[in-house]
Amino acid sequence: MSRQAKPIRSDIAWSTTGRITVRGRDLPGQILGHMNLGEFTFFQLTGQEPTPQQPEVLNAIVITLVEHGLTPSAIAARLTYSGAPESMQAAVASGLCGLGSVFVGGMEDAARMLSEALPERRNISDTELAEMARDQVNAYRQAKRILPGLGHPIHKPVDPRAPRLFEIAAANDMAGPYVRLIQAIATEAERMHGRSLPVNATGAIGAICCEFGFPWWIVRGFGVMARAIGPVGHMLEEHERPIAREIWRRVDDEATAHLRPA
Amino acid sequence: MSRQAKPIRSDIAWSTTGRITVRGRDLPGQILGHMNLGEFTFFQLTGQEPTPQQPEVLNAIVITLVEHGLTPSAIAARLTYSGAPESMQAAVASGLCGLGSVFVGGMEDAARMLSEALPERRNISDTELAEMARDQVNAYRQAKRILPGLGHPIHKPVDPRAPRLFEIAAANDMAGPYVRLIQAIATEAERMHGRSLPVNATGAIGAICCEFGFPWWIVRGFGVMARAIGPVGHMLEEHERPIAREIWRRVDDEATAHLRPA
Amino acid sequence: MSRQAKPIRSDIAWSTTGRITVRGRDLPGQILGHMNLGEFTFFQLTGQEPTPQQPEVLNAIVITLVEHGLTPSAIAARLTYSGAPESMQAAVASGLCGLGSVFVGGMEDAARMLSEALPERRNISDTELAEMARDQVNAYRQAKRILPGLGHPIHKPVDPRAPRLFEIAAANDMAGPYVRLIQAIATEAERMHGRSLPVNATGAIGAICCEFGFPWWIVRGFGVMARAIGPVGHMLEEHERPIAREIWRRVDDEATAHLRPA
Amino acid sequence: MSRQAKPIRSDIAWSTTGRITVRGRDLPGQILGHMNLGEFTFFQLTGQEPTPQQPEVLNAIVITLVEHGLTPSAIAARLTYSGAPESMQAAVASGLCGLGSVFVGGMEDAARMLSEALPERRNISDTELAEMARDQVNAYRQAKRILPGLGHPIHKPVDPRAPRLFEIAAANDMAGPYVRLIQAIATEAERMHGRSLPVNATGAIGAICCEFGFPWWIVRGFGVMARAIGPVGHMLEEHERPIAREIWRRVDDEATAHLRPA
Repeated sequence: MSRQAKPIRSDIAWSTTGRITVRGRDLPGQILGHMNLGEFTFFQLTGQEPTPQQPEVLNAIVITLVEHGLTPSAIAARLTYSGAPESMQAAVASGLCGLGSVFVGGMEDAARMLSEALPERRNISDTELAEMARDQVNAYRQAKRILPGLGHPIHKPVDPRAPRLFEIAAANDMAGPYVRLIQAIATEAERMHGRSLPVNATGAIGAICCEFGFPWWIVRGFGVMARAIGPVGHMLEEHERPIAREIWRRVDDEATAHLRPA
Repeated sequence: MSRQAKPIRSDIAWSTTGRITVRGRDLPGQILGHMNLGEFTFFQLTGQEPTPQQPEVLNAIVITLVEHGLTPSAIAARLTYSGAPESMQAAVASGLCGLGSVFVGGMEDAARMLSEALPERRNISDTELAEMARDQVNAYRQAKRILPGLGHPIHKPVDPRAPRLFEIAAANDMAGPYVRLIQAIATEAERMHGRSLPVNATGAIGAICCEFGFPWWIVRGFGVMARAIGPVGHMLEEHERPIAREIWRRVDDEATAHLRPA
Repeated sequence: MSRQAKPIRSDIAWSTTGRITVRGRDLPGQILGHMNLGEFTFFQLTGQEPTPQQPEVLNAIVITLVEHGLTPSAIAARLTYSGAPESMQAAVASGLCGLGSVFVGGMEDAARMLSEALPERRNISDTELAEMARDQVNAYRQAKRILPGLGHPIHKPVDPRAPRLFEIAAANDMAGPYVRLIQAIATEAERMHGRSLPVNATGAIGAICCEFGFPWWIVRGFGVMARAIGPVGHMLEEHERPIAREIWRRVDDEATAHLRPA
Repeated sequence: MSRQAKPIRSDIAWSTTGRITVRGRDLPGQILGHMNLGEFTFFQLTGQEPTPQQPEVLNAIVITLVEHGLTPSAIAARLTYSGAPESMQAAVASGLCGLGSVFVGGMEDAARMLSEALPERRNISDTELAEMARDQVNAYRQAKRILPGLGHPIHKPVDPRAPRLFEIAAANDMAGPYVRLIQAIATEAERMHGRSLPVNATGAIGAICCEFGFPWWIVRGFGVMARAIGPVGHMLEEHERPIAREIWRRVDDEATAHLRPA
């Protein structure tokens, strides 16, 4: 093998016998007790000191995604925990695996649509915005693709998380061109399709992540980190008042009843 | 099947077309913008309003565990991401799977030891504490088991996270009997083994989790939720400046060099 | 860092531009078309050419574990697939995560008990066998631990897989001391507890794995590889006739009915 | 909730106290000892009795994918195992998570391309075949997409698994229109791009899966089930002669050397 080795390099964190440093800050001395989890998440991801506003908004985004009841992800985690209670990490992992195109992907798709329409964050006139929105809606229509971040199968007429997230973004000076753009897209889509299609939570989060400057392909990560918190509460409950076995027994009994001898 | 169905019940969260409620609080109206991620994590887990002190301490615990450089977990996540960049959730899951007995289990083991020694949080005299510590050290010695939460393979002489965590706990009135007990166990272990065995970060976290009243079998969960945040930063970096393929090629080349034809 | 690098070495497989070799055999020329999956699994694991009998028995062990209807593992995989159909690998992974102490661990526990009782495979008299069985049953009783591999919550009076696996082992000259020992333990346990406690499938598999000479801590692996096959069939069905969303909706509706406004 | 419950139904397997039945066959009596793992995999997936030829070909497909040395998947599994040796299932799961678009997706993409070009398996003339191949190559060129299943980054000039798989398919009467089509596509791509682009293993497997009649979206599953077998061998080796910690230490040391104090 005459392959030339390439360097391996990471700028995130290092440690020695006596020190642990993350993004250039001493973890025990300059981070613990000085940052809350939202601040530190921003700092670990970007390497930048957060403004006072940024963690306010980031906390809201992540909290929105932590808990939504007995989702497929939470049920999978509880079923997994019932088989391997000694491996809680695997139960959380099991629940995360399904955060893909159907449930969390919408955030990513919305952020992608917005950042492709407006690659650089900049001031933009209402006229240009309306035109951009029309172009997007037309492009998705022609490609027979569903516009991401609009409408909701359960929360109707409006997903109540979206207006609240926009409110928090505005209160922290982060309701800029991407937030305006997704709202313009919703307006245009409603006009074209003749029905209510308000921005949902994933659309709001996708837009706000663009305001932060996060690349679209990292946006799913906020859903993933959030949904690693929620299942811990579900396992605490599962341990005290289990439901996973009952779900299993009911599903197996009903699904195969037609096959069994009478 | 004459099996009697058992009820399926969860008290954590519910939603309807217009509402999303977690632990009895309206998510958009009473949680978003009102709680930070540490506060909400406490609230989702316990269903109790946090005191001002509790989230301070919980934030410190979780932040301690988010990032420790290129750990086996972070490397696994990056290798996984290099094969399935469209499934970031699976890469995070892949990294979580290894948070078991070797790396994060120490927290759980320490919390278990402490909560079995002192099942109820209560005031305890120095004499009783010293006796309890002696009993534990003897019991582990006789069972030829390693005392959890003491010493560290890399951080010497002292894991710098532990004293800082105790400091934060004390500043928030949470350095009670469990914190005192693990320190007494360390003192007793050092006396018996004749070498420095200070409490490490996992020992400190295990003790502080007992101060919170968390059952020992949920303690690993704080490490799991923390280690779902860190890898998102690693994948951001991997996307921009990949190292996973180089790790793969080097490992494969070296490990099988002795098998290949010259 | 003055750390001394240690060598990294693996003896399993290597490849070059023109060749792929597993355990010293050319994959395209000497394995594909020459071995079936059971033979190759034995060969990859052990590096030894299988006898004609070994793959017969190994095939039976793995096939026993592939499919058992809508298990917690299969349901978790289907729920995960419904959220991330583009990541089937993550759905299978999700289902595997729960193969722990409760569902598959019995195999491992049985193999461990047997190999600790009889560290080397050797001929053993009926008298010695009975004594060994008595010692084990007593040891578990005193430690208040449940004997692994006996009885079954669903399959009564006898788990029909166990006698069939013993039959196949016997037909292939692999029903040696470990198979006899677990049967003696069952007899002794039944005598002591005064109720029917026949060897179940996990007990039979644990014993037969000891006949193979597999170390106890690898035994769980046969369940894991088997349960990566079954879910592929479940996802084929889920894709054509989905049930995951209905499971989700029913569970969420019922579990939180008591919380919702009337 | 006035939601109408939908039925939950699965046709794969059922069990009662005394019986376990898969696809209508009694597992202990009619499957164990009567089928090998390749036969049973076909049977579990399709519900059809395999012909003598089908398992020959399916065994070859799965075996091809079991083991390819220290792949990213195998390294991730070993790193995970080093942190949670008590949870082998999670280590295998960790390794599976990366079998996505980059490493195994090629099989799926090839099968998709072929089954979209030729939705029904039927006889097809050489002229029609050449035209179909030309259309595909042009379509991918215009869409600036890479043709799946051709060329290989390591195995040059020819991936030796592909011709062997075609040979096995032909010997079992399964080298039909899809095998001919992918070869015609390779020929056409080589002509258009002016360089050698032979069918690789993933292309061969994609084509042969179409011969079986498997839908393209299940094809990745054969890679996933295969790669759940290989890591068990790697963990057996890791347990006896560990390399994961050394990989970790080397990567962490090198990657963060530029950050540390001299």
